[in-house]
Amino acid sequence: MRPKIYLFGDSITEASFCDGGWGSSLAHHFCRTVDVVLRGYSGYNTRWALKVAEKVFPAVKGGGGGGDEGAPIAVTVFFGANDACLPDRCSAFQHVPIHEYKQNLQSIVSFLKNQWPTTLILLITPPPIDEEARIKHPYVENPTGQPERTNEAAGAYAKACTEVSRELGLPVIDLWTKMQQLPDWKKAYLSDGLHLNQTGNRVVFEEVVMKLNEKGLSLEKLPVDLPLISEIEPNNPLKAFEK
Amino acid sequence: MRPKIYLFGDSITEASFCDGGWGSSLAHHFCRTVDVVLRGYSGYNTRWALKVAEKVFPAVKGGGGGGDEGAPIAVTVFFGANDACLPDRCSAFQHVPIHEYKQNLQSIVSFLKNQWPTTLILLITPPPIDEEARIKHPYVENPTGQPERTNEAAGAYAKACTEVSRELGLPVIDLWTKMQQLPDWKKAYLSDGLHLNQTGNRVVFEEVVMKLNEKGLSLEKLPVDLPLISEIEPNNPLKAFEK
Repeated sequence: MRPKIYLFGDSITEASFCDGGWGSSLAHHFCRTVDVVLRGYSGYNTRWALKVAEKVFPAVKGGGGGGDEGAPIAVTVFFGANDACLPDRCSAFQHVPIHEYKQNLQSIVSFLKNQWPTTLILLITPPPIDEEARIKHPYVENPTGQPERTNEAAGAYAKACTEVSRELGLPVIDLWTKMQQLPDWKKAYLSDGLHLNQTGNRVVFEEVVMKLNEKGLSLEKLPVDLPLISEIEPNNPLKAFEK
Repeated sequence: MRPKIYLFGDSITEASFCDGGWGSSLAHHFCRTVDVVLRGYSGYNTRWALKVAEKVFPAVKGGGGGGDEGAPIAVTVFFGANDACLPDRCSAFQHVPIHEYKQNLQSIVSFLKNQWPTTLILLITPPPIDEEARIKHPYVENPTGQPERTNEAAGAYAKACTEVSRELGLPVIDLWTKMQQLPDWKKAYLSDGLHLNQTGNRVVFEEVVMKLNEKGLSLEKLPVDLPLISEIEPNNPLKAFEK
């Protein structure tokens, strides 16, 4: 059985198999070693994610919590962009207060750890927000013309996410901070002020590969299940399949 | 459990999660409904594919042949480009005689049907070959300077594949014929005379979606497992999760 990596998150995860998306890049990277499984839910915040976690990751039949059969080698948990919608703006219904966001993230991790104790859980913070672009590309009717998300709020949720990672001893990709290291980050990485363009997707892909690598989940260390063409002897091709 | 579609094939399948690849496009298309699972093996012909079929698709535990739990809704079977390597050229070790190619394809289908009687099996023929480009981009040392694959041979294997589909009553995508309907097919669809560029990948994606659609495997008919953001009431978001 080929090992799995689940991608659990909101629209930035759901859209990750677009052209040049970070999910499809991961699947391509691990094309002979790992199944990259998409569990992205557009618009979801951590409150809703927690509600559906048992349906997204059903317990393995016959094995109680801790049954490691079918356990993925890693799960990315990438929420916060919707939680960080401001409570008095047009996408308020997606807002989750920051203290609840932290609790929800902890509960999601706890749920996953209970199911799969050895699975690597990798947190990803929300990306930074380009507020002007958010005004230009509204997702819902926005009569006030104020952005429904601000970069400051996204930053607070990103910080909360890194705090959870520290408290629980988990790796984290602080995308909010990482992306803003580039002066031109708004145009360089974002398509509509929130979602990632191809270069932004590339950043997430590279960061995820690096974090997995640090935890021993790399092409060098993960087994290839069947012979590579380079291992097949032209004079005796079937030999490679005799094992 | 979200249903699965397996992509079983050679390098044109293995590379299908590249930017704009037909596999990642399928995964993106079905992002809330189906897991698209990559089982591509670069360089493999049907002889080798048949050798590894039981490892690629292990029987479900406890259920003998016919146990439909965990059965995918569809499998694409996309071999022939390597079988069609000429027996007297530099990639001869990948060559499989055409009568054996047909038998192997039949055996692969039979293996899948035995395991999963209700699964849709979709055959895909090898693509056409641009022989000049094959000379320019050799995969192995090629002292004679003759192409290791010809378009004529690929066409014979494509025809054999469509014959198998007819004999077994399976849908088929005749990529060899389809692509050559465009006069500029060599440049338009191929990157190195064999593998697909983004436009070629787009053709495969669209053809696969169309064939799945004809068999009732469409976005309109497949269930979405969890509420879409459009189904969530802004005034009472949790209502959608109460079912």
